Amino acid sequence: MIEIPARKGKAARVRRGQRVKVINSKGQQVVDTWAFNAEDLGEFMSMEHSRIAIGHIIPAVGDALVTNRRRPILTLVEDTSGGIHDTLFAACDRWRYELLGCTEYHDNCTDNLWAALGELGVAPQETPAPLNLFMNIPVIDGNRVEIRPPVSTPGSHVTLRAEMDCILAFSACPQDMVPINGLAMRPTEAQFELLD
Amino acid sequence: MIEIPARKGKAARVRRGQRVKVINSKGQQVVDTWAFNAEDLGEFMSMEHSRIAIGHIIPAVGDALVTNRRRPILTLVEDTSGGIHDTLFAACDRWRYELLGCTEYHDNCTDNLWAALGELGVAPQETPAPLNLFMNIPVIDGNRVEIRPPVSTPGSHVTLRAEMDCILAFSACPQDMVPINGLAMRPTEAQFELLD
Repeated sequence: MIEIPARKGKAARVRRGQRVKVINSKGQQVVDTWAFNAEDLGEFMSMEHSRIAIGHIIPAVGDALVTNRRRPILTLVEDTSGGIHDTLFAACDRWRYELLGCTEYHDNCTDNLWAALGELGVAPQETPAPLNLFMNIPVIDGNRVEIRPPVSTPGSHVTLRAEMDCILAFSACPQDMVPINGLAMRPTEAQFELLD
Repeated sequence: MIEIPARKGKAARVRRGQRVKVINSKGQQVVDTWAFNAEDLGEFMSMEHSRIAIGHIIPAVGDALVTNRRRPILTLVEDTSGGIHDTLFAACDRWRYELLGCTEYHDNCTDNLWAALGELGVAPQETPAPLNLFMNIPVIDGNRVEIRPPVSTPGSHVTLRAEMDCILAFSACPQDMVPINGLAMRPTEAQFELLD
């Protein structure tokens, strides 16, 4: 069991066919998730390509998320979290927190992605839009988007199967200025486990 | 008046404060649209950041689309097209047409972006998700997405105001295998005009 520390990121290499169980340990923690082709970091899981491939905006069990070259990279094979995830919003970044009024550095998912990959000795070529596991952004009346607390419960999880050798990166979202990680606005750790 | 040839792209430099009128000459032609900071092509209009900024998925008059650094770059100031545009789908690319069964090269918006910028002597660092003007991708029941013909009429237009010096790129989408450019599936030209 590998910890994604509260407010921080963690990455891991995953072989094709391996499954990755992502556990929402405390229940209302958003986990920004990225996947890169291990052989070519210029190919990565892409939300704007995946929405076309799966025909809806929220991935469900059985859906294969695809890369910017439209090849399956991760399939959602299990979900006990209530099935609410987000593909619409960018990862938080320094500019997000500056706009919210932060005058000092605030941890953010974008920096966490780059730091987590840096720990593996690699760097992405860009910051793709993440798969925001457990994040609750309903589309109301086909247009309006709202930020709501996750519906996931403590210990619930999703399992993703790698469809190619890849590098996965996770960030336990440090957002504590809007209730995206629960009304208490207290970001927590999460965990993941690699399964053969 | 500058033509965006059928199935092809066209780019232009635009100064802060200038307006760009994008005209759907024949009425049902999708125009993929990108905007890059003229001083730094690593900063560009981002759909995943803009959805957060504007609070809905379809830009409306008055909305400022923002960059991946969350700064306004284009404001939608006028729209006679029926107000239906898309921010959810990636630009078409060679892989999209291969999946649809193409065995030979098919014009595509991604290559059109790179070629159009190439004509100006610049290259982007990545292919951002485009603002798909006039493209009709409804989100049904908060989740399902469908490909539908545009609702725009011949000669209708949108006007965008540049909020920074930028390079705009347009592609008259060459998609002729699904009815995204109308049920006739015959891509046409479009036009744009720079206004001071």
